[in-house]
Amino acid sequence: MRIGIFGASGYVGGELIRLLLQHPKVEVTTVTSNTYAGEYVYRVHPNLRGETNLRFVRSNPSTITDECDLLFIATPHGVSSTFMPELIETGIRIIDASADFRLKNPKDYPVWYNWEHRCPELLEKAVYGLPELHRDEIRNAQLVACPGCMAAGAILALAPVVKDGRIETDRIIVDSKVGSSGAGAKPTRSSHHSEHYSTVRPYKPVGHRHTAEIEQELRLLSGRDVVVSMSAHAVNMVRGILTTCHVFIKGEITPLEVWRMYRGFYRGEPFIRFVRDRKGIYRYPDPKVVVGTNYCDIGFEVDGHAHRLVLISAIDNLMKGAAGTAVQNMNIMLGYDEREGLRVMGLHPV
Amino acid sequence: MRIGIFGASGYVGGELIRLLLQHPKVEVTTVTSNTYAGEYVYRVHPNLRGETNLRFVRSNPSTITDECDLLFIATPHGVSSTFMPELIETGIRIIDASADFRLKNPKDYPVWYNWEHRCPELLEKAVYGLPELHRDEIRNAQLVACPGCMAAGAILALAPVVKDGRIETDRIIVDSKVGSSGAGAKPTRSSHHSEHYSTVRPYKPVGHRHTAEIEQELRLLSGRDVVVSMSAHAVNMVRGILTTCHVFIKGEITPLEVWRMYRGFYRGEPFIRFVRDRKGIYRYPDPKVVVGTNYCDIGFEVDGHAHRLVLISAIDNLMKGAAGTAVQNMNIMLGYDEREGLRVMGLHPV
Amino acid sequence: MRIGIFGASGYVGGELIRLLLQHPKVEVTTVTSNTYAGEYVYRVHPNLRGETNLRFVRSNPSTITDECDLLFIATPHGVSSTFMPELIETGIRIIDASADFRLKNPKDYPVWYNWEHRCPELLEKAVYGLPELHRDEIRNAQLVACPGCMAAGAILALAPVVKDGRIETDRIIVDSKVGSSGAGAKPTRSSHHSEHYSTVRPYKPVGHRHTAEIEQELRLLSGRDVVVSMSAHAVNMVRGILTTCHVFIKGEITPLEVWRMYRGFYRGEPFIRFVRDRKGIYRYPDPKVVVGTNYCDIGFEVDGHAHRLVLISAIDNLMKGAAGTAVQNMNIMLGYDEREGLRVMGLHPV
Amino acid sequence: MRIGIFGASGYVGGELIRLLLQHPKVEVTTVTSNTYAGEYVYRVHPNLRGETNLRFVRSNPSTITDECDLLFIATPHGVSSTFMPELIETGIRIIDASADFRLKNPKDYPVWYNWEHRCPELLEKAVYGLPELHRDEIRNAQLVACPGCMAAGAILALAPVVKDGRIETDRIIVDSKVGSSGAGAKPTRSSHHSEHYSTVRPYKPVGHRHTAEIEQELRLLSGRDVVVSMSAHAVNMVRGILTTCHVFIKGEITPLEVWRMYRGFYRGEPFIRFVRDRKGIYRYPDPKVVVGTNYCDIGFEVDGHAHRLVLISAIDNLMKGAAGTAVQNMNIMLGYDEREGLRVMGLHPV
Repeated sequence: MRIGIFGASGYVGGELIRLLLQHPKVEVTTVTSNTYAGEYVYRVHPNLRGETNLRFVRSNPSTITDECDLLFIATPHGVSSTFMPELIETGIRIIDASADFRLKNPKDYPVWYNWEHRCPELLEKAVYGLPELHRDEIRNAQLVACPGCMAAGAILALAPVVKDGRIETDRIIVDSKVGSSGAGAKPTRSSHHSEHYSTVRPYKPVGHRHTAEIEQELRLLSGRDVVVSMSAHAVNMVRGILTTCHVFIKGEITPLEVWRMYRGFYRGEPFIRFVRDRKGIYRYPDPKVVVGTNYCDIGFEVDGHAHRLVLISAIDNLMKGAAGTAVQNMNIMLGYDEREGLRVMGLHPV
Repeated sequence: MRIGIFGASGYVGGELIRLLLQHPKVEVTTVTSNTYAGEYVYRVHPNLRGETNLRFVRSNPSTITDECDLLFIATPHGVSSTFMPELIETGIRIIDASADFRLKNPKDYPVWYNWEHRCPELLEKAVYGLPELHRDEIRNAQLVACPGCMAAGAILALAPVVKDGRIETDRIIVDSKVGSSGAGAKPTRSSHHSEHYSTVRPYKPVGHRHTAEIEQELRLLSGRDVVVSMSAHAVNMVRGILTTCHVFIKGEITPLEVWRMYRGFYRGEPFIRFVRDRKGIYRYPDPKVVVGTNYCDIGFEVDGHAHRLVLISAIDNLMKGAAGTAVQNMNIMLGYDEREGLRVMGLHPV
Repeated sequence: MRIGIFGASGYVGGELIRLLLQHPKVEVTTVTSNTYAGEYVYRVHPNLRGETNLRFVRSNPSTITDECDLLFIATPHGVSSTFMPELIETGIRIIDASADFRLKNPKDYPVWYNWEHRCPELLEKAVYGLPELHRDEIRNAQLVACPGCMAAGAILALAPVVKDGRIETDRIIVDSKVGSSGAGAKPTRSSHHSEHYSTVRPYKPVGHRHTAEIEQELRLLSGRDVVVSMSAHAVNMVRGILTTCHVFIKGEITPLEVWRMYRGFYRGEPFIRFVRDRKGIYRYPDPKVVVGTNYCDIGFEVDGHAHRLVLISAIDNLMKGAAGTAVQNMNIMLGYDEREGLRVMGLHPV
Repeated sequence: MRIGIFGASGYVGGELIRLLLQHPKVEVTTVTSNTYAGEYVYRVHPNLRGETNLRFVRSNPSTITDECDLLFIATPHGVSSTFMPELIETGIRIIDASADFRLKNPKDYPVWYNWEHRCPELLEKAVYGLPELHRDEIRNAQLVACPGCMAAGAILALAPVVKDGRIETDRIIVDSKVGSSGAGAKPTRSSHHSEHYSTVRPYKPVGHRHTAEIEQELRLLSGRDVVVSMSAHAVNMVRGILTTCHVFIKGEITPLEVWRMYRGFYRGEPFIRFVRDRKGIYRYPDPKVVVGTNYCDIGFEVDGHAHRLVLISAIDNLMKGAAGTAVQNMNIMLGYDEREGLRVMGLHPV
């Protein structure tokens, strides 16, 4: 199975190359980057030194379909929709890590992304690539749109309880804390080490674009309207997202009920772990523990005092939040074991 | 004015020594530590090398009142209430940085701290030491109980809007992110560098003890019942707390109204700054910017989509969250300029 | 092949468990810890949650030889020599990650470790477990003593040029920068996050114990006396060692000669990479790039101005500096492919 | 005394503004930045919010001499020499934090900086602004050229022992570890948080430009030729430089002799502290302890094993390594107490 990666010089692109080079059933044949065309991959992704002699080539949507059987896209938002119709016509299967095909309602793009969608007719065709919610559709999809990193963490933390229905669905707080790699590989003042070190920066207290996809998916699950109150913070680490969700309970709920609800919802899921210990220092999910893995760790606590349920998830934003889920989707699409190439255990300490 | 510090080997104690050594109107005469008695202060607080030849002495509540005119207490929670009645009788003025006299209702101690208060009759006598709310009472108080670090950040962010009354007071979310110095100077597995680095650890998602004092103070302001939903996270920095408060608006509120409400409430306050810019990377409060200062930076954003108001504050937990406020209280009690010894500007970058 | 790990609750022990659980040819049957006996492994090593149901058992040198075919030891220095004679008699093969059998000369122990060796007769029997220098002896050894983490980084950086002989062997500077995990899992004041964050702490400017084994191995290679001037610094990261070696050249040497010398010496080595680029930001070795891998990255620069050669290596102290090399040794001893279980690529960024 | 700062939007410029705003005897009247002309200073230096209403103006060497009595220059290297002759003619006194007038020998500029000096005749007129070595010349200088940050740390660590003469002056190793603020405020790939976090990057193992000024000053002190072997590393902190100097002793030297040599050389110096304890975790200098201060902490250890003396210094690169020394020079030039505006104690922990 020949694999191409379109836009492979960023952090998600690098992570895809790393994962696919180690995947026993596929071969990476083409990695594109207009900025680094001609350059060895290891010059941009230094961890791959000695692992591959691949070089970047210029991106060309017209020829790439000849060179590979499945295509990953890791371009910035707003790019893939410019050439997607052309790609779709060739029949090639596509896993898009960008935001261009995540939302079902074309009207959401001007609202949340400030642009009109160029090929709204393809939105319905695209499958939202979160295996825990859409595994069967992913299997046969031609175009899979992977979730945003913070959306993945929030949806996985909230899905069972939103489906269950015993919470106030118009007051769902999503308070996200994300590492610097979430902002991509391009240097900016905000990502400058001297400015980012020791920070807890509330860079998007309201209006974060992932709100749209979180609401879309939770609405699907609950069959009702859902309003998500999201705030995103940048913190002093490179990889990882901790998502703290605060929801209000209608009536009563016991920890055991929550426990069963989550265990039931995620039964058999290879990349969901539950973390809820009475002792030790890792009693709740912590992004530190999932660095480099495809796990989404989930924990919770019931706050009787405030009729509140706190749901917590931890993911590696480049793995379960991007490239890991993308590869998991590929495994599903190609009929491989879903864990293939993703079985790595986390490092501790790191 | 001779000053004593009881329990001066911890981080708050060290910060008090540092501030008071630089204060032009007082003299530090006695600093106590049972663990380090006889040791030079700079061996424990290495920043004070060359600044003072003080040595720690053993704590003795009976004699310390002879050696100083005003006493700071920075002992662990549950200690100062064992000797406070004896101290109070001497007439000495006391600023207690621990939790023992923060709560007015004696019944709150068994609920939130798991112990019965030893001298509940003193609780009424104590003044909650947040100058922005209780300046007049502090002026003449004999015993001032300084706020908990996370409580200070939350109360200052919420006070104006809770007093205003246009929010749902039973659904106030306080999502705190605190640096490692907030856990004190005693090494533990959780504070071990290898375990704490790169972490975002939700160490107290529900049931945090500062909830009690936040509710107490907000209830006083609003005259109604208030329920606070607090979650505390440890992050990879040493100093600072970012508090993100999510509250739900009844009816409508404009940014301008919020702006006026906050400006009005905090008019003339020397240590409150408002941070709300349309450009730049420090558009909201950030603990990085207040390190070493006594400022509480406050910002906000209105989320029309979710009928939510997000209130954000940033403080240095050892300064405005502890020793800085303690010295500010001393200045008020002694009739000094409130900013005396606290005029330092923050460092950037740091 | 049944594997036991003696002293498995520390960071090296945890890393051994992680690597061996993922190793296709062995089975971990026994992991010991007196502190955590009875506890699930994942409570101590949170990355292993969901990966294994192993529990720690008490350490018992007498019975462990029945339960496994090969034994790793990761106890603190000074422990394994108390029971090694007993173990050796059973004929079991042993890989010791501690310092007890690294030095050949019994007189070095009182000098560098402050204790008399309890079984000096075993020192000659032990093989110094650095595959790049002693592969053939390791193959048939019963007892392999793995190098100290900083020793591994220094020896691998220096071996070719010391063997070559064109440098002053009595003025070899080894300036090491190591992450906090190198100090182990036990909390101390020095490793307390608030004290370790942002530090560059010269914790052992002279007299570091690894000096002894570095000199021993370099002496063996050069056939002459070697004096190493080592200084160790703790820095603000968790994993990794950067070793900067400064040596003085007798006569002249060109970069090309150094390049050939190193390529020749390490030809075919699976875990040595050379890093020397004219552009990019990873032109020299960097511990960040080898986190989680078994690589030793080596680079150099000739300083014509000062007749100096700077040799730089980067390793992950828990991998190539401890558990990774230990597993590499196991692969050699058991006739497996040397890379088995160690083929992982590094993460970037991390 | 009206003060101007030319090139005030960088980190050194910001530090100068901060220090001078707090200085009791001067007034900052003009701060220039071509990039940010018209912008409020606090938009670029967020720590100054609420402290000043100054705005940046465009740089104009012709008019600035009318607006101020003393001028600081904090432009990038190679800029100030383009307009210095014009400034000098006006008679204004100038403190230049850039490299343009540090070296006495014009031939050193093409060698170390790759450009021919535009006004070599001014080099002799300029005084090298390290008060500990040139206080008397600084007092009456018109043009003071402040040391490079790493040069300051190295020279202060080495001066007494180089002057003493009992070391090999052709084998002086300077191994520097510097925080990210040393690279300035401009975002680059190397300073991108995701790339800089957890790094120990040997970015200049040979050929660092500060070598030239270190050799110049040590040569002056010793009266003999001096060869410095410098290697610079970037580490994961924002402020600070730890300099580890390894030198070889001719004959014997005792710790007491070194101690006396250093105490004697630096007698009365207000910003030199000696750090050498037998216990505690801050037994040697550590940049963490001097953050925000103008101290240079110095320590040492004698290595009898290798005939080596290890000299260690720690400074804040933006303070004693740049703006702090610049203000100290101003105090000397204007006849103020040398500590004026620089008396701040360090923070701990930070």
